[in-house]
Amino acid sequence: MTKPRRPPTGNAVFSQAVTDVITEAAIDLLVESGYARLTMDGVAKRADVGKSAIYRRWPSKLEMVVAGLVELSIPIGPAPDTGSLRGDVRAVMQAAFDWLSDPRIRAVLPDLIAEADRNPVLAEAVAEHVTGPRVTWARAALHRARDRGELAADDVDLVLDLTIAPVFWRLTHARPVDDQYLDRLTELTIGAVRQNAGS
Amino acid sequence: MTKPRRPPTGNAVFSQAVTDVITEAAIDLLVESGYARLTMDGVAKRADVGKSAIYRRWPSKLEMVVAGLVELSIPIGPAPDTGSLRGDVRAVMQAAFDWLSDPRIRAVLPDLIAEADRNPVLAEAVAEHVTGPRVTWARAALHRARDRGELAADDVDLVLDLTIAPVFWRLTHARPVDDQYLDRLTELTIGAVRQNAGS
Repeated sequence: MTKPRRPPTGNAVFSQAVTDVITEAAIDLLVESGYARLTMDGVAKRADVGKSAIYRRWPSKLEMVVAGLVELSIPIGPAPDTGSLRGDVRAVMQAAFDWLSDPRIRAVLPDLIAEADRNPVLAEAVAEHVTGPRVTWARAALHRARDRGELAADDVDLVLDLTIAPVFWRLTHARPVDDQYLDRLTELTIGAVRQNAGS
Repeated sequence: MTKPRRPPTGNAVFSQAVTDVITEAAIDLLVESGYARLTMDGVAKRADVGKSAIYRRWPSKLEMVVAGLVELSIPIGPAPDTGSLRGDVRAVMQAAFDWLSDPRIRAVLPDLIAEADRNPVLAEAVAEHVTGPRVTWARAALHRARDRGELAADDVDLVLDLTIAPVFWRLTHARPVDDQYLDRLTELTIGAVRQNAGS
């Protein structure tokens, strides 16, 4: 028996560098062409690897894309804790705006929302890895406001909607979002929920 | 010269029945699979016509899809005119909800928003034929409220965002929208803009 000159290939050893190159290629193609047009062949070509290198890591396109999404969804730090509902709402709104302004997120998120409508497994993966962590993050700040009595428990979900939905809607319809818009939306939001908290 | 037994074929005469069948097939496939996966071959097969029947009518997938969207975007009637900002906002919100609750619109709209990000010509067509007429419709109601002094001119766009964005966001994230939610969002919206109208 001769001594092997290379480490064994196949299932046993994965090069992290190759995994990174494939993941990056998958994200790039997701941004450029969307989930529906993404193929394993396309990713293999873009990453300059054989298709078997991809299939050894992930059984299907879905698992590969989810790995890419986890990579894309960088950690978001501790939730805002400014001490006031106004400050926290404005900070959450700013974070949503910054996130949605990232060109890669801008390209990927609407596409995934559309695809999720036809693909429940993808919908679950997106909720778990992309939108879910951000909702949890924002909710932590709003729960503190609720505990301070600045926000009725019933309104937490409504406030979450208002911190992201109008910004998403405008950005996906080629309409500008500036500081003035975010300030006005913040005032509207806290004005309304304060009335309710006091009732 | 013999008398033709059928009307001439080719460019001269289009059967409206065939046009309808093709348009319907295009909408069906758009709903089921999305814009990216839609092919002329697929539509021809679904409609049971030759591909030339499609190309005689539209030069490309884009024009064919736009024809489908015009078909899908049924007339929406006169804008609400309830005499109060509250009534008009609630009516606009209800219309947005009803529209987005149509399973075909639900499937098509997020997909088109995603695709429009990569395709400026499609973006323009969607704005003109799908979202544009609805914005104009809602704006007519809000301009009456503005003329009555119930709404500052600066807030018209914000109110338009609030009548549709949270509803769209919730429905595309598998979260329910009920009358209570729409009522609360209406109160929040008019409460906020009334303050501003009075300032």
